[in-house]
Amino acid sequence: MFRNQMPRYEVLSEDAVATLDAGWRRLVSEIGVEFLSERALQLFRDAGQKVEDNTVFLDPDFVLAQVAKAPGEFDVQARNPANNLHIGGDAMAFGAVYGPPFVREGAVRRDGTFEDFRAFAKLAQSFGVLDSAGGVITEPNDTPLDSRHLDMTYALQTLTDKVYMGNVVSGVNAADTLAMTSILFGGVEQGRQVIEETPATISLINCNSPLRWDDRMLEALFEYVGANQPVVLTPFLLMGAMSPVTIPAALVQQMAEALSGIALAQLIRPGAPVIFGSFLSTIDMKSGSPTFGTPESGLGLLCTGQIARRFGLPFRTGGGLTSSQVPDAQAGYEAMMTMLPTFLAGANWVMHSAGWLEGGLVASYEKFVVDVEVLQMLQHEFRPLEIDEGSIAFDAHQEVGHGGHFLGAMHTMERFRDCFYRPLLSSSDNYERWMRGGGQDAASRAGEIWRAKLEEYEQPPLDDAVREELEEYVVRRRAELGD
Amino acid sequence: MFRNQMPRYEVLSEDAVATLDAGWRRLVSEIGVEFLSERALQLFRDAGQKVEDNTVFLDPDFVLAQVAKAPGEFDVQARNPANNLHIGGDAMAFGAVYGPPFVREGAVRRDGTFEDFRAFAKLAQSFGVLDSAGGVITEPNDTPLDSRHLDMTYALQTLTDKVYMGNVVSGVNAADTLAMTSILFGGVEQGRQVIEETPATISLINCNSPLRWDDRMLEALFEYVGANQPVVLTPFLLMGAMSPVTIPAALVQQMAEALSGIALAQLIRPGAPVIFGSFLSTIDMKSGSPTFGTPESGLGLLCTGQIARRFGLPFRTGGGLTSSQVPDAQAGYEAMMTMLPTFLAGANWVMHSAGWLEGGLVASYEKFVVDVEVLQMLQHEFRPLEIDEGSIAFDAHQEVGHGGHFLGAMHTMERFRDCFYRPLLSSSDNYERWMRGGGQDAASRAGEIWRAKLEEYEQPPLDDAVREELEEYVVRRRAELGD
Repeated sequence: MFRNQMPRYEVLSEDAVATLDAGWRRLVSEIGVEFLSERALQLFRDAGQKVEDNTVFLDPDFVLAQVAKAPGEFDVQARNPANNLHIGGDAMAFGAVYGPPFVREGAVRRDGTFEDFRAFAKLAQSFGVLDSAGGVITEPNDTPLDSRHLDMTYALQTLTDKVYMGNVVSGVNAADTLAMTSILFGGVEQGRQVIEETPATISLINCNSPLRWDDRMLEALFEYVGANQPVVLTPFLLMGAMSPVTIPAALVQQMAEALSGIALAQLIRPGAPVIFGSFLSTIDMKSGSPTFGTPESGLGLLCTGQIARRFGLPFRTGGGLTSSQVPDAQAGYEAMMTMLPTFLAGANWVMHSAGWLEGGLVASYEKFVVDVEVLQMLQHEFRPLEIDEGSIAFDAHQEVGHGGHFLGAMHTMERFRDCFYRPLLSSSDNYERWMRGGGQDAASRAGEIWRAKLEEYEQPPLDDAVREELEEYVVRRRAELGD
Repeated sequence: MFRNQMPRYEVLSEDAVATLDAGWRRLVSEIGVEFLSERALQLFRDAGQKVEDNTVFLDPDFVLAQVAKAPGEFDVQARNPANNLHIGGDAMAFGAVYGPPFVREGAVRRDGTFEDFRAFAKLAQSFGVLDSAGGVITEPNDTPLDSRHLDMTYALQTLTDKVYMGNVVSGVNAADTLAMTSILFGGVEQGRQVIEETPATISLINCNSPLRWDDRMLEALFEYVGANQPVVLTPFLLMGAMSPVTIPAALVQQMAEALSGIALAQLIRPGAPVIFGSFLSTIDMKSGSPTFGTPESGLGLLCTGQIARRFGLPFRTGGGLTSSQVPDAQAGYEAMMTMLPTFLAGANWVMHSAGWLEGGLVASYEKFVVDVEVLQMLQHEFRPLEIDEGSIAFDAHQEVGHGGHFLGAMHTMERFRDCFYRPLLSSSDNYERWMRGGGQDAASRAGEIWRAKLEEYEQPPLDDAVREELEEYVVRRRAELGD
């Protein structure tokens, strides 16, 4: 997996950090945080925190003491050990888009189907730059609602051999994900021990911002944390709607929410792996539409990295976000406007890294390829330079002289195969050659690339007995759930 | 103009810098630099440097002593004082694309015309984010070759009231640019004093890389530096062709070339304003085509900023570069892949900031608008956050409470008009609204924007006598040049 050994870009002064720090302390202690779960409230009561109705008024130092119990880095295992992940430090892991109800394929925009879900899972498996297919790559609208999570988990487990994300719609769904993950790693009982030892799935736990954790997300949290599976505690902040319109306020709220959720996770199971989550963007103040790839989200992202590192926590942010409706120039610059700061900040867990379109409502096949290219470029750029006698190339100048060219120089000949990044999608063809090739724009070429990639897809091998056990589980649970 | 008060992103260690430093010292002293100008060679001889044929073997400490004479920052005046520029420090100035022989307007790609040149000049005047129309915004192929520089300069002087770039095809052309600039600032003689006092035009002087300064560029250099007008001494490095294929080698060569040119400028006129230039990208090793917006160019750009600052010089690099043939997703991500590092590096003089397409062969109207949007976004992002009681917004949380929304909060009402960046081009319309609006992609919307901007264009006022004097000069010189 990718390790970002370049410097982090930090923009907050020590004074600024101190002011933000005072801000979240005041929020959690004076406004408090709502937890719509009696189990959660009881844990906080037992730990000596003041609870009124559903609101916990947290002592900031208590919060920090809980946060300190969380590991700074941890491993997550995939069924193919070559795809194991390390979360934290300089490691960066990338997953596909999560959650879109719609799909765009060329000029067609339609409801996502299970076939789409499977196709995106195959693409995520096929592109080495992605560490995970994520979870709900697109909503499989044509499968029964109550048992859909079984279908998605089974597809992720069998079509990919990478780490996948857990279902978080309810505690029941989370328990199913855990049972199926246990099966994949040795059977319901033995596998459970295996994944409690080294986690095998990562789950998103969103805050119902501002300052409220709702019951269904908390049920899932209890399940996953109880099984020692990492959770991404994520304030969901579209500034102007779920948070005030200023970046500093959003950062303060983000700390209050993420840290309060992490404190709960540590009360449930001290030492449980957690990820400081961030999903921070803006809305259009005229239409109310969410906006992505904006200056505010880029700046917020840089600050988030600096903040999360102060708490010694791995963090999640970034992706290939855009508001654009199609994979056009806007989609290109907005995706890069988010992904480049993601690298500058050194985010550890990057959801929505491929396929995000139309504010996350659409999973786009063509945008998937655009994003893979962006990711590959940035992984190439964020590698420290090797600076030595060989790379300085004095001998090449001796050979070429003044006003010559280096095309045939020995130094070039020795390196030309892999000296430069080789694009997947980008074209530098001259005009005549480009026209002979059909004069296709990047979106059109992306369409050819993902179709070819799907054609070439090979399912990763899986033990027949494990597959059968998974299938039996799905069939049994589907019946129990009444679908 | 824009001042970048955010931190600089520097990626080279002290050891790396020292190795690069040893590299350029060895290049200039052992391989030497060619100057195809007897006047230049004589200046170096007089200064005690070893000269063999056209090659000057430079003492690196002599080079640094000359470089130290150059000002670290300087002003450049526009005929409208509101558009005066400061070059250096945290100031960043942005000019339009420079040099394309072709134009793209929607689906049509054709030879650039003088009417195109005028249209682009008007657009550069109209968008406040641009500090300069640049110089050869597109090649006006329908004007007589020998007097074309007169037409372009006159257009830049009359259609814009911003700083413009000088013509560098020959010493004669440079002298014409200087004469016309003098006219604009008070008449041929008095104006010359005015612009020698505070420069009024900036000129590009490209190196014929590797390690050769050719005669025509040097003739222009002598004219401009003699008149105290700033020159951008720019190594022209497409790695693999004009430099070795490794970034460290390109950085070393870039220092050798830029510093040798700057040393000459200081010999011509000690204290003359200069800009450390960089134009550093790659070629496709299969086709030989130049490639832009690549990981290598982004990384080289970041290093260039760090290096130029060490010499205490303002520097030029960056832009909205792309290899793409059309203003598509590739054009979007490649432009951002270049422009965001331009801000991270804090480049002082940024050419090719708007309109660049197809590796610089094409000036694109639609890409011009895409780039203006990218520039505006980044200027918005690279502003330090104001972090105080008001921006922390504790009162808004008191008002809204848990799980509420901030749309109607007092804190929001006080700020909603200008709290977020307002896009020029980007759309966050929901799908239904976007379809009702015609379902146009960004390139198509950009077409509407530039046409509307041209419609609204108003020529900046100019004294009739000055205009007449300029016109007389153009007519007289055109006749003398035989066109």
